[in-house]
Amino acid sequence: MDVHEVVEETLARLSDGDGVWISSFTAAELHARADEIDPARPLAGVPFAVKDNIDVAGLPTTAACPDFAYRPERNAPVVQRLLDAGAIAVGKTNLDQFATGLTGARSPYGSPESVFGGGLISGGSSSGSAVAVANGAVRFALGTDTAGSGRVPAALNGIVGIKPTRGLLSTLGVVPACRSLDCVSVFAPDLGTADRVMRTAAGPVAGDPWSRTGRRPLISAPRVGVPESLDFFGDAGQEKAFARFTGDVTVDIGPLLEAGDLLYRGPWVAERLADLDDFLKTHPDSVLPVTRRILETGYAFSAADAFRAQHRLRELRMAADWIWQKTDVLVLPTIGTTYTHAEIAEDPIGRNLNLGRYTQFANLLDMAAVTVPNGFTADGRPASLTLFGPAFSDETLMLFARSLTVNDSTAPPRTSPPAAAGGTTG
Amino acid sequence: MDVHEVVEETLARLSDGDGVWISSFTAAELHARADEIDPARPLAGVPFAVKDNIDVAGLPTTAACPDFAYRPERNAPVVQRLLDAGAIAVGKTNLDQFATGLTGARSPYGSPESVFGGGLISGGSSSGSAVAVANGAVRFALGTDTAGSGRVPAALNGIVGIKPTRGLLSTLGVVPACRSLDCVSVFAPDLGTADRVMRTAAGPVAGDPWSRTGRRPLISAPRVGVPESLDFFGDAGQEKAFARFTGDVTVDIGPLLEAGDLLYRGPWVAERLADLDDFLKTHPDSVLPVTRRILETGYAFSAADAFRAQHRLRELRMAADWIWQKTDVLVLPTIGTTYTHAEIAEDPIGRNLNLGRYTQFANLLDMAAVTVPNGFTADGRPASLTLFGPAFSDETLMLFARSLTVNDSTAPPRTSPPAAAGGTTG
Repeated sequence: MDVHEVVEETLARLSDGDGVWISSFTAAELHARADEIDPARPLAGVPFAVKDNIDVAGLPTTAACPDFAYRPERNAPVVQRLLDAGAIAVGKTNLDQFATGLTGARSPYGSPESVFGGGLISGGSSSGSAVAVANGAVRFALGTDTAGSGRVPAALNGIVGIKPTRGLLSTLGVVPACRSLDCVSVFAPDLGTADRVMRTAAGPVAGDPWSRTGRRPLISAPRVGVPESLDFFGDAGQEKAFARFTGDVTVDIGPLLEAGDLLYRGPWVAERLADLDDFLKTHPDSVLPVTRRILETGYAFSAADAFRAQHRLRELRMAADWIWQKTDVLVLPTIGTTYTHAEIAEDPIGRNLNLGRYTQFANLLDMAAVTVPNGFTADGRPASLTLFGPAFSDETLMLFARSLTVNDSTAPPRTSPPAAAGGTTG
Repeated sequence: MDVHEVVEETLARLSDGDGVWISSFTAAELHARADEIDPARPLAGVPFAVKDNIDVAGLPTTAACPDFAYRPERNAPVVQRLLDAGAIAVGKTNLDQFATGLTGARSPYGSPESVFGGGLISGGSSSGSAVAVANGAVRFALGTDTAGSGRVPAALNGIVGIKPTRGLLSTLGVVPACRSLDCVSVFAPDLGTADRVMRTAAGPVAGDPWSRTGRRPLISAPRVGVPESLDFFGDAGQEKAFARFTGDVTVDIGPLLEAGDLLYRGPWVAERLADLDDFLKTHPDSVLPVTRRILETGYAFSAADAFRAQHRLRELRMAADWIWQKTDVLVLPTIGTTYTHAEIAEDPIGRNLNLGRYTQFANLLDMAAVTVPNGFTADGRPASLTLFGPAFSDETLMLFARSLTVNDSTAPPRTSPPAAAGGTTG
């Protein structure tokens, strides 16, 4: 397909009013960009979306807070790498405000629905990026992931979500949530695309203090761990879906869950204030009430509390590192249950925490994660697995993810089949 | 020399009333210990001192705060390793209370004087350990080093001080100062002894969340950096002493100094409260006024402040890492000037900060450090160099330290010559 045809197809899929997009380039801008592309580049003509907390020159960065918006002069380095590879940035996608939340229901730009419908939330905070991939508007999208924002919406939309090892993809030009934990993440319909995007986007960036490089040896036949026990919040369908997967050994994930609780129930909320404090104080009414309520819990913690929690985290990390003595890949359900928008409205904070139960420890414990679809529940809701490994095990996780065959005869057709378009991506 | 003779010599040198020792084993206990020693062990019969914030079974751990004291059931693993190698723990040495301070003048157990006399402070916080080595009572001593406590007293007593890479020597069984920064350090009269002690004491310890292992390739002909400029606080003698050393390249140490200021002038003071908060609140009158005054500054910092400072530190670490692009070893004066007890009494906090100016950034920036004597000033005060390298460059620093020939014809005789005793140490 010609690059200009791809642009036309993409434009046709940029639906209005569904809360997926916050801004996008015009048809003229996209065609002008298409004219510039060297067809020999690895991602030539591949359209992609960018979560609206990552800078794209020419579009505002809002972080889903209109009064916070600014117009960046430069692309974030991770965006620039993709553009240099020939990809076409289409626009900026919706998110839970300041990337705080896992529901997709905390934005003044609307609350996207999962592509599977039924009133199901899209998940967040990278809500728009996940839906834009799942509904075929773009071939891949960038998100961010601090507590699970790159994995929860992948699970709720039946797509692949890569949460790389911290620092592999630069976070320069990204609105900080928790600087020490933030990752740029990748959404794609399939692992092959995700892998190609990862290889293009990853790499050290001069001037980024959080940039890291490293690589563990590839393990082609990993020992696979599953939890000794799990809480599905009463969701028998998700429990049954996860039971289709069997590991080699069982693992106590208690230290992981305790570490995760430090993020929203402990002093790490205050890491968000390290950057947002001034804005929150000068623009209290510009922030959504639910977001403000969460951020303000950070004021209760002292510096001594923060250090004490970091010391505890160090102990938990030691306990978690023991997991890698007996297993190479740990597999968990990405989310224990799904929620509709109505259910989230009933308990926006408690149910958000439930959504993060099996995601929020990963960055605190310096893990890499890959989220893949795991078929569907009997009542047609998406199920999902996340594979975890220690820092810099990304390639082993990708390889193992490719080996998984989802065997699910109950899978309903997707409400919006993935596009066959997309230039050179396979 | 027979081990029992070493014990007798050591006992004869355990002077009373000079503030060096807080507690020690009895003659009977030491002779009983001498009977047990396998002469084939590498440190057989070598007497050593232990700073009184490190657990030695059989003696109380006071941290120089009598009301804080407890009787540990076990040796700290780092002490146990030395005992297993045949060394004889003689007793526990004085320190600035809770290892907070660099003067040696903040202890209810007395304020040791430098072995060079003249009213000069011993330096701290490992005051007693440094003096016990310098006056020949023991062949080596353990200290701790968070902000410079293993280096400043080495400088003031003309001995070697090793501040290893964080985590190489376990800090289990050590009263925490700043858990994320604390190191166990080694004092010795010469590099050969220090090296042998280091090799015995270092190593991973199960259950220590701060334990780390690693090793950089040995660089036998390192590129040596010196600062572009330095502040000697008006001390022309120390300035002249440092000028005897010349490096290959000059380095901007601005990022190091800014990082160092985070430790006592920034939120890291609150890391001390993470462990001491309860004691300070329940026993305010058990803590020295100067120590309490410093610790209480930590209450002013919020968790957001702590995270913000950690983010800044990350940027400074990136800047500091550039130093290792053009140099392998950075050489600074350990201290810019020396003080007498009278001078410290005039300004106990400001002059303490001056003493830490060229030491306190090392652990924040994850550096290894080796302190060596650098002769004397014209008026007979000790001068000292500290060699810095990136984490796990310890062996390169030791090798380079051995290559340094101190050429100083003005050196006066030591007031208390190092003992020739010491069993098998060379």
